[in-house]
Amino acid sequence: MTQPIRAAIVGSTGYGGVELIRLLLQHPHVDITSVISSSTPGVPIANGFPHLNEIVTDTLDAVDVPLIRSKADVVFLATPAGVAANLAPQLLEAGLKVIDISGDFRLKSGEVYEKWYKHKPAADEYLAKAVYGLAEVYGEEVKGVDFISNPGCYPTATLLGLVPAVKAGWIDPATIIIDAKSGVSGAGRGLSLTNHFAEINENFLAYKVNKHQHIPEIEQVLSREAGQEVITTFTTHLVPMTRGIQSTIYATVKGKRSDEDFLELYREFYKGRPFVRIRPKGKVPGTKEVWGSNYCDIGFSVDDRTGRVTIVSVIDNVVKGAAGQAVQNLNLMMGWDEATGLAFTPVYP
Amino acid sequence: MTQPIRAAIVGSTGYGGVELIRLLLQHPHVDITSVISSSTPGVPIANGFPHLNEIVTDTLDAVDVPLIRSKADVVFLATPAGVAANLAPQLLEAGLKVIDISGDFRLKSGEVYEKWYKHKPAADEYLAKAVYGLAEVYGEEVKGVDFISNPGCYPTATLLGLVPAVKAGWIDPATIIIDAKSGVSGAGRGLSLTNHFAEINENFLAYKVNKHQHIPEIEQVLSREAGQEVITTFTTHLVPMTRGIQSTIYATVKGKRSDEDFLELYREFYKGRPFVRIRPKGKVPGTKEVWGSNYCDIGFSVDDRTGRVTIVSVIDNVVKGAAGQAVQNLNLMMGWDEATGLAFTPVYP
Amino acid sequence: MTQPIRAAIVGSTGYGGVELIRLLLQHPHVDITSVISSSTPGVPIANGFPHLNEIVTDTLDAVDVPLIRSKADVVFLATPAGVAANLAPQLLEAGLKVIDISGDFRLKSGEVYEKWYKHKPAADEYLAKAVYGLAEVYGEEVKGVDFISNPGCYPTATLLGLVPAVKAGWIDPATIIIDAKSGVSGAGRGLSLTNHFAEINENFLAYKVNKHQHIPEIEQVLSREAGQEVITTFTTHLVPMTRGIQSTIYATVKGKRSDEDFLELYREFYKGRPFVRIRPKGKVPGTKEVWGSNYCDIGFSVDDRTGRVTIVSVIDNVVKGAAGQAVQNLNLMMGWDEATGLAFTPVYP
Amino acid sequence: MTQPIRAAIVGSTGYGGVELIRLLLQHPHVDITSVISSSTPGVPIANGFPHLNEIVTDTLDAVDVPLIRSKADVVFLATPAGVAANLAPQLLEAGLKVIDISGDFRLKSGEVYEKWYKHKPAADEYLAKAVYGLAEVYGEEVKGVDFISNPGCYPTATLLGLVPAVKAGWIDPATIIIDAKSGVSGAGRGLSLTNHFAEINENFLAYKVNKHQHIPEIEQVLSREAGQEVITTFTTHLVPMTRGIQSTIYATVKGKRSDEDFLELYREFYKGRPFVRIRPKGKVPGTKEVWGSNYCDIGFSVDDRTGRVTIVSVIDNVVKGAAGQAVQNLNLMMGWDEATGLAFTPVYP
Repeated sequence: MTQPIRAAIVGSTGYGGVELIRLLLQHPHVDITSVISSSTPGVPIANGFPHLNEIVTDTLDAVDVPLIRSKADVVFLATPAGVAANLAPQLLEAGLKVIDISGDFRLKSGEVYEKWYKHKPAADEYLAKAVYGLAEVYGEEVKGVDFISNPGCYPTATLLGLVPAVKAGWIDPATIIIDAKSGVSGAGRGLSLTNHFAEINENFLAYKVNKHQHIPEIEQVLSREAGQEVITTFTTHLVPMTRGIQSTIYATVKGKRSDEDFLELYREFYKGRPFVRIRPKGKVPGTKEVWGSNYCDIGFSVDDRTGRVTIVSVIDNVVKGAAGQAVQNLNLMMGWDEATGLAFTPVYP
Repeated sequence: MTQPIRAAIVGSTGYGGVELIRLLLQHPHVDITSVISSSTPGVPIANGFPHLNEIVTDTLDAVDVPLIRSKADVVFLATPAGVAANLAPQLLEAGLKVIDISGDFRLKSGEVYEKWYKHKPAADEYLAKAVYGLAEVYGEEVKGVDFISNPGCYPTATLLGLVPAVKAGWIDPATIIIDAKSGVSGAGRGLSLTNHFAEINENFLAYKVNKHQHIPEIEQVLSREAGQEVITTFTTHLVPMTRGIQSTIYATVKGKRSDEDFLELYREFYKGRPFVRIRPKGKVPGTKEVWGSNYCDIGFSVDDRTGRVTIVSVIDNVVKGAAGQAVQNLNLMMGWDEATGLAFTPVYP
Repeated sequence: MTQPIRAAIVGSTGYGGVELIRLLLQHPHVDITSVISSSTPGVPIANGFPHLNEIVTDTLDAVDVPLIRSKADVVFLATPAGVAANLAPQLLEAGLKVIDISGDFRLKSGEVYEKWYKHKPAADEYLAKAVYGLAEVYGEEVKGVDFISNPGCYPTATLLGLVPAVKAGWIDPATIIIDAKSGVSGAGRGLSLTNHFAEINENFLAYKVNKHQHIPEIEQVLSREAGQEVITTFTTHLVPMTRGIQSTIYATVKGKRSDEDFLELYREFYKGRPFVRIRPKGKVPGTKEVWGSNYCDIGFSVDDRTGRVTIVSVIDNVVKGAAGQAVQNLNLMMGWDEATGLAFTPVYP
Repeated sequence: MTQPIRAAIVGSTGYGGVELIRLLLQHPHVDITSVISSSTPGVPIANGFPHLNEIVTDTLDAVDVPLIRSKADVVFLATPAGVAANLAPQLLEAGLKVIDISGDFRLKSGEVYEKWYKHKPAADEYLAKAVYGLAEVYGEEVKGVDFISNPGCYPTATLLGLVPAVKAGWIDPATIIIDAKSGVSGAGRGLSLTNHFAEINENFLAYKVNKHQHIPEIEQVLSREAGQEVITTFTTHLVPMTRGIQSTIYATVKGKRSDEDFLELYREFYKGRPFVRIRPKGKVPGTKEVWGSNYCDIGFSVDDRTGRVTIVSVIDNVVKGAAGQAVQNLNLMMGWDEATGLAFTPVYP
């Protein structure tokens, strides 16, 4: 048995960070050696998260690169936009492996980042160096690298639903429309009126219409896979539930393709990948069917009346859309089986 | 003061029926004289709906046309698909006014009805006679008639969001894609695993993809307004909340139109109609903002990158999508002010 | 027809205030002439509450006693603890009628107030002057006065469930234990981690155990009605829903009393009061059965095994527990029928 | 490494059964060799539970004792009341180990069972033989036996909160009042109007007041631990959430005891038991803090004013209240570490 790798988590008091703790505690090759928070260093993490009582007794560390270097081999950055842009390069320079769960290194163009994120971008050198860890699509590129940019939650659900068809040229990229919905945990633990229970319970609403920062991330990947520039319409909505993302994706089919054709194309594309499950003909998944797990479930409906295909893709935003895929990327990076520590069943009901 | 009209409600033990009771109790010109249920006649309605205790002390009547004729002037049919097709003609022949909340008379073609509803259609004569009561669009046609077919919940939200743009020729009808979401009350009071709390709570799912019976209803109206056959993609989803429908509508804009252009077009179109509210530039409504009320709120976002407009339209499915619009139609039919008995504020939070 | 009374609402941007707006808009004898907020004067109220679009077009006024005096006859104070203690006396001195929805004038002892509320109490003179408006119990005392202290939400549900039995001497006051539960709107619109959707959804928790400021209010009334000092155990819990309070009340029965005895006692006590509904033998109410309405529904179960009675009492915390009872008190104060503007049906489902 | 034990699950299509599958899939010493359903044998279990797609590919077996005997060593019975009474003896006679999750063997008196459950009781011989598996209290008795009756969900939360104080004689057993609340999954997967989403969402209600079948189970244990007959008041409520049970427990303290005294008593009592966590002074747990896990968290508040202690105890009803404790009992029965396969973190948020 090899020595476990030592992991630090920056942003441990956010939902992404605390889910990394849950997942890494079950990982056979990882020891969590530092939980880090810039806001409340010195406090036991279980004070703010009583569910961790007697499980994680650690006190939160400050964000201190030499300290991290002394305690860890790999660092997960579960930080708000704009933080990793500065921090990740320092950690890399210190010789650490870095998996960034924030959006700071997903876009290859600093200019595009600044336009959509309204933050100063990271240095081009590091934008270039970061490998975009959409595990089922770019898993090979992740293997052995030191710096991974973990995909966004919406892009993960959306791109896993789109890439095989786009790559195969079966749909017209210019016609893609994505209607995405997320549970409220996607907005994080920061307080806001939108996420105040009495406001969002028994409510459904669209937000950031045509302005969401995940648009350029989706387009960057689709453009690469289509071999041409792709512009899409992408809308995000809040659902009065805690976890789950669903993308309903529309596109005009090129040529004559049936449901069965799509099923076969996708099953072939994701063959051997344990976390993408294609539903049988006539079925589309609900978000609850992947709740608490690293799965992405996908279903199809080709409509002869309109010539369009409707693709439904669901994930748990906190797992496959954040912490779970980050662990999956760690596994790939380290050369371990991609499902290590992640092979658990969705929680139902 | 005129004599109040006497109203009977068939299907009083469904959600549409019981909401009609709530609304009509506040109506100054209506007396509810018979609450009718085929399943539990003879039982006090408050037994099954304790919220009506001491408010409605009536016992449920059976479905009996002469009895209805003796007790009522107008009949609301809040019945499952397939029932009104037979019942409405009998009631009309008996000299009653009829407002049908079911889908049995919305489609002008019996053949199309049978294809999508899987029920035997009503006689052509009555399909022709029924006036489609989308109040803000066809309100003039409703005035003075005896037989109204009340629009479906999804079509109401969707068509109010689309008709002005389609009629004006501002969007390409062939590009319309509608992504609609509904609270669970839309599925009615009949038990099913899908609506079992532990299955749909903390869940979001698409259903009847490309198969929903509201598709031909939407297309029938859009085709009429566009002056050409319109085929659309329309998807329905369940949201873990009780009330509310949201339609996110996508279409390619013809010519150069701004958000302001759309706002002005819609404000002009709905001028004087009390129940459609257009949101200011940059804002789209959430379902909670119309909860419990007869309003339909609409917002826009034109995207220069894609050349598409995103239209967001919300209603309370049980009010504007069923019982409220039925009362509005009664008002129009009777020549009363369209807001009579409906001018109340959404319940918030 | 008499001139309508002019009403001002201080704290219009809280949930109690905005519900007062909803209710008073339906009241035939009231005009809302000023909506007031100390935090955002000068802003249209519909900006923060889009559900009021086109319904209330008013801009928020500042808290300014002469301005209020010039615009209103009666003032509702829906302010946080500690505000009304100072403001109410000024408004009364200016000749206004005042209905205080906050807790500042419910306790007759300033010392007790300070202990439980941790705020400086109002002057004794005004504590003495305020009439405690538990409408179904002290309605006669409210008639014609100028200054009403509206009961708390939990005390309303609890006391309506207890007073008849305590007054009749049917239960031993020393044995009373109250287990109360509230929807999250009861905590108001102020942001807190406890009310953050992802934290309280799919959660149930007790809070302020043995420390809730409604304890002395309940004890003050019970002591008065029992004719002896009553000390109770009272626990509050948050339920992942927006509206509703349920009190499950336990006490040892004195003598031999059946369910029927209790039903009869309560029906007699509340005879002629439109908003208390006693459930039939064997039935207890759920909160949804009074949702959005001014009703308080009560049910009983006497247990021969234990010699205890279990009393279940439910209200909508925002209506009967705040704004609705305030309007009911206005009606009583003004000599109008107590149900004026409040005779609407619960919203179901 | 030892040979894994082969497990069969009768009632695999209920919530308890499907949770057993989730937990046992992670258990290092167990193979699930038969998933059994009387209602839909022959069908792949993933058809009805799509979250199991590609995880459990088994087809449901019928309830057939020789077949079970050929496939399994231990049988979990997650069946409705009345089924195990007949089935468990047959399985035991066939030489299988049995863990019954239903209520059929919890009460030692068949007469009491029949009174509360309204089913024919099991034979006295088997009632006597079944060991009541409240793991943290009777774990020693479970070791090595063949037949375990797994405690009910409410009793588990309640008794873990009460036994140390009752056994120590610190509270007066005659004064115990238990106000318990459960998520809706506790009512199972069978359809009912009570569990229909639109009826129970945004609702809170008491049910089976003074009639719940868990009352005699709680009293049986308390009587044993108190060394005298204990009669309690116990009320159950439904909370609009899927998982979680909270018991708020009231009792009069004997002698002078502080919060710290209770904390110490309970910490000592549960020393070395991994799944009971005692909260620090001044804190009580919410249900979400144990969500998806096998923990039972407990907090206290002694009130000097009333002389009572309030004890708050929470569990996940599907895990610690059913499948998780059953696995814990399997571990104890087999002589394995009690936390085997159960040492995972609650899912938060």
